[in-house]
Amino acid sequence: MTVTLLAFAASLRTSSLNRRLLHAAVEIARQKGAQVDVAEFHEFDMPLYDGDLQVREGIPVGAQELARRLQAADGLLLASPEYNFSIPGTLKNAIDWLSRIRPLPFKGKSALLLSTSTGLVGGNRGLWVLRVPLEMLGMHVYPDMYSLASGDKAMDPGGFPVDAAARLRLEAVIGGYLDTAVRLHG
Amino acid sequence: MTVTLLAFAASLRTSSLNRRLLHAAVEIARQKGAQVDVAEFHEFDMPLYDGDLQVREGIPVGAQELARRLQAADGLLLASPEYNFSIPGTLKNAIDWLSRIRPLPFKGKSALLLSTSTGLVGGNRGLWVLRVPLEMLGMHVYPDMYSLASGDKAMDPGGFPVDAAARLRLEAVIGGYLDTAVRLHG
Amino acid sequence: MTVTLLAFAASLRTSSLNRRLLHAAVEIARQKGAQVDVAEFHEFDMPLYDGDLQVREGIPVGAQELARRLQAADGLLLASPEYNFSIPGTLKNAIDWLSRIRPLPFKGKSALLLSTSTGLVGGNRGLWVLRVPLEMLGMHVYPDMYSLASGDKAMDPGGFPVDAAARLRLEAVIGGYLDTAVRLHG
Amino acid sequence: MTVTLLAFAASLRTSSLNRRLLHAAVEIARQKGAQVDVAEFHEFDMPLYDGDLQVREGIPVGAQELARRLQAADGLLLASPEYNFSIPGTLKNAIDWLSRIRPLPFKGKSALLLSTSTGLVGGNRGLWVLRVPLEMLGMHVYPDMYSLASGDKAMDPGGFPVDAAARLRLEAVIGGYLDTAVRLHG
Repeated sequence: MTVTLLAFAASLRTSSLNRRLLHAAVEIARQKGAQVDVAEFHEFDMPLYDGDLQVREGIPVGAQELARRLQAADGLLLASPEYNFSIPGTLKNAIDWLSRIRPLPFKGKSALLLSTSTGLVGGNRGLWVLRVPLEMLGMHVYPDMYSLASGDKAMDPGGFPVDAAARLRLEAVIGGYLDTAVRLHG
Repeated sequence: MTVTLLAFAASLRTSSLNRRLLHAAVEIARQKGAQVDVAEFHEFDMPLYDGDLQVREGIPVGAQELARRLQAADGLLLASPEYNFSIPGTLKNAIDWLSRIRPLPFKGKSALLLSTSTGLVGGNRGLWVLRVPLEMLGMHVYPDMYSLASGDKAMDPGGFPVDAAARLRLEAVIGGYLDTAVRLHG
Repeated sequence: MTVTLLAFAASLRTSSLNRRLLHAAVEIARQKGAQVDVAEFHEFDMPLYDGDLQVREGIPVGAQELARRLQAADGLLLASPEYNFSIPGTLKNAIDWLSRIRPLPFKGKSALLLSTSTGLVGGNRGLWVLRVPLEMLGMHVYPDMYSLASGDKAMDPGGFPVDAAARLRLEAVIGGYLDTAVRLHG
Repeated sequence: MTVTLLAFAASLRTSSLNRRLLHAAVEIARQKGAQVDVAEFHEFDMPLYDGDLQVREGIPVGAQELARRLQAADGLLLASPEYNFSIPGTLKNAIDWLSRIRPLPFKGKSALLLSTSTGLVGGNRGLWVLRVPLEMLGMHVYPDMYSLASGDKAMDPGGFPVDAAARLRLEAVIGGYLDTAVRLHG
């Protein structure tokens, strides 16, 4: 069975460290046999959530597109920055819009969460906040996550960790997730 | 000493239950001697956070306005809905923009957090997620919070809890917060 | 494939509401084909964690017993009270001891979390805190959880929710978990 | 006004890194004019929480002693290890016992939280989990916290950070907390 994944980094910045890390993760996932749909967060542009706007105009096109791409996949490979020790407002806003779509696009899907930052915590606190709405919406968020400290120095231009042990661990986390995804979605 | 507060509900919906609850809280705070600047969340409209946009165009006008109003006050009276057991993306997005302004607009300010929802938890899980970025940015978030379950039935048109004990508790929480704010900002 | 579960309530009180709820959950799980090892938290009595004690005397017998019973199962059915909006210290202490055992007893296992309390939140905040160490230690914690408000009034003597919709939801959550467990452990 | 503090490290190990960090913090607090009661966590030994035990024997002596020492102070200087990305079960157990005492010993007190660990996160995730029950029980937990990464290498024998900037930050956090404590308790 081939696992199909949607992959994106939850950052709008062109030079995002999380996008670089995501691209390495995508390459590893493909080498391990996954079929990956790589998206840009900009493809899912949507307004700030407003219940009145939803009544007037329905679900925005960008949210529908994210829901469609997620529905078409078994799981999600998501690299997210940490803003103020928490989830980025931009990413939470996307989750809030998608939570209004039925059937719930997250339900029964799996996810592997990655992060990096220039600091020593590598964005790990933000990922734990991110797990809550994803799990509440029915996602099987893989227990293990990958957070890379000092991402501005610790990655090569392709996003691969330069430290051998850090790279092996990234490969192991992705391998472990894909094994689980085969079981969950096979 | 008169405590000055900025007050708003983090919802863009016209018929927001949290706005109703906020208005009752504002009335109580004024009766207890606070001077309150009541704002609408729409006055702080701003785009989704994007580091490139910040470089090109600076801090958006709506974020500057929120920072200015917060800076002019001692503390913040904030009623926030809970979306998906967490902070609304819209509110987190505002916090993310404000965290880019120096000096930090939250630093040294105090806050009292309120919530209501149609469910039994009254939005309380979302408030605990909201505390983290506010505290990380230097705010004295008052330990006690107020979450009203079944907000669609539990408030009168003015936002006051119809149950006498629930109303007394709202008054006590606001009174306790104001006492602390006098000490912190006096 | 038959799913094997270890089941216990993380309360030492004889009249624990969570033990009652657990017993109903065990009965439902058995009706749905699971093989369940029902334990009492007292069988896993252990001292408070102390690194020096571990060096002197090794892992306590109660922690070894919990690890052995967990290792022998595919997954864990755990009902936990909420203490002070968080995980009970007693349960966290057991997790802390088990985290010192190699191989990690939690690794690769699945879990379904339940809670009840006399309050309106039904212990749900505590479960979200409990997820973190379990997931960090490698457990597949089922996304959906079951929290029963007003447990002192909402359960019959056997622990079954008296409200028909609440009982159906308990059955659905257990059914959904068992389907996932068959996939993960089959 | 002289601020009085109770100080302890939530670790039972003799060679605890958090106890070393705490001792440096105590020295700094004293230099800045605070009066500090330094305790060992062992002075507050108590059994695992059990509601039946409470009914039979009341609050254990160790919990009463911790409550008494906390009641006698304005605030708490607490250094806590992180176990499994969360609060130590030992410390949570103490909080759970104290939450049964009336009047609540935490109510209206302030706290400054510190942590260190051998890892890059310095125990910071555990402190965020620790805040919740303390705040829920009415403590003014100072917004800023201090987490020292690589504590086995980053402290001198007296617990002072060897890096000058890290030491200055420790002094600044303690100074900021004491300024706030004077306002809150003065």
